[in-house]
Amino acid sequence: MEEFCRKFPLMWGVYMRKAIILAAVVLWCVLWGSAAGAAQLPKVISLPAPRTQGGMPLMQALKQRSSNRDYSSKELSLQTLSDLLWAGFGVSRPDGRRTAPSAANVQEIDIYVAKADGLFRYNAQANALELIVAEDIRASTGKQPFVQSAAVNLIYVADFSRQGRFGTQKDSWAAMDAGFIAENVYLFCASEGLATVARGLFDAELLAKNMKLRADQKVVLTQSIGYPQ
Amino acid sequence: MEEFCRKFPLMWGVYMRKAIILAAVVLWCVLWGSAAGAAQLPKVISLPAPRTQGGMPLMQALKQRSSNRDYSSKELSLQTLSDLLWAGFGVSRPDGRRTAPSAANVQEIDIYVAKADGLFRYNAQANALELIVAEDIRASTGKQPFVQSAAVNLIYVADFSRQGRFGTQKDSWAAMDAGFIAENVYLFCASEGLATVARGLFDAELLAKNMKLRADQKVVLTQSIGYPQ
Repeated sequence: MEEFCRKFPLMWGVYMRKAIILAAVVLWCVLWGSAAGAAQLPKVISLPAPRTQGGMPLMQALKQRSSNRDYSSKELSLQTLSDLLWAGFGVSRPDGRRTAPSAANVQEIDIYVAKADGLFRYNAQANALELIVAEDIRASTGKQPFVQSAAVNLIYVADFSRQGRFGTQKDSWAAMDAGFIAENVYLFCASEGLATVARGLFDAELLAKNMKLRADQKVVLTQSIGYPQ
Repeated sequence: MEEFCRKFPLMWGVYMRKAIILAAVVLWCVLWGSAAGAAQLPKVISLPAPRTQGGMPLMQALKQRSSNRDYSSKELSLQTLSDLLWAGFGVSRPDGRRTAPSAANVQEIDIYVAKADGLFRYNAQANALELIVAEDIRASTGKQPFVQSAAVNLIYVADFSRQGRFGTQKDSWAAMDAGFIAENVYLFCASEGLATVARGLFDAELLAKNMKLRADQKVVLTQSIGYPQ
């Protein structure tokens, strides 16, 4: 016992050093792991070709359309995501026209896709997702708790640099153009048995920061999507 | 000749009296005719029950969706008009919810229907058209000549009395809510082979006067619909 008491400070010092080294190794592994994870996420994800045939008969899809705020955590496949984004605002004609109209056909709305693995921008022409940040920003897309559990949150962003000549109407027209797209998404979700709700309440400043938006870009509308609970 | 000159003032007086009486009769006939015409148009037109089944598969309707500015003069049947209005913003559920969403479910958009025989307001709950004015106001719904030939021009009107707590966002949210509805109409037209185009440019003051709108009502969007030429 006497011996133990004499050696204790020394032993303690040894344990402490070992613990510090272990903690450093663990921390290094964690940091390296997330860096490697981010590196593994490609800058551009090519989407499978959208399925532009089929779906529920239109009148039934209209009858089924509804807002739903209860989501399971099940993810959407890349195929479903491709179909969903094409339905919303995909390129439907060789001249570049889209599934939704836009004022003076300026196509000023960009769809951003917030998922667990990151924030992406939908490139309709390339049918691809472009990585913006490799972070889960879903919680900042709205104040309601369900926005974190929905597999996908779409964020409709107006790019006012494409919309210069609209003057005082630019906010209203951007909102209208986002409405056209969001309704396509609503009907796609009705047809596919997905839950969705469009949301007009969010912290626009926080979102703009987290999404790295320019000053002439503005979040107009958000929309949660996922499998129903 | 002398005699003629002597009698002329008298004859002139006779002719004048006859002309005045004739003009009065003609005027009375014209006024009575329009009054009778207006009287023939009932204040409320019940629409046939909308067909809420069928239509093109959703993805094909999305692919076919487009804007078209060439219209034949062929009228829409009441059945087609009923289906169209239901698709746009009809009551789809027993709790009064509709085929298109609206911010905070205030359902602030009313659809007015401008046809050759008059201007009507769509009463979705009653599935009926309510006569506003028995005049053809189609030409005042836009500056492009085709608005006069399209069988129907829908006019989306925000009723701000239902939307009090939206504050500064009320214009944007009304535009968005009109966008949801107009996209449903676009897809219905794609499915039914009808031509349509949504239009954001119009003389809002002239329209408000011709439509007898209150000060807290505002035209948000117009949309022409008809058979393609």
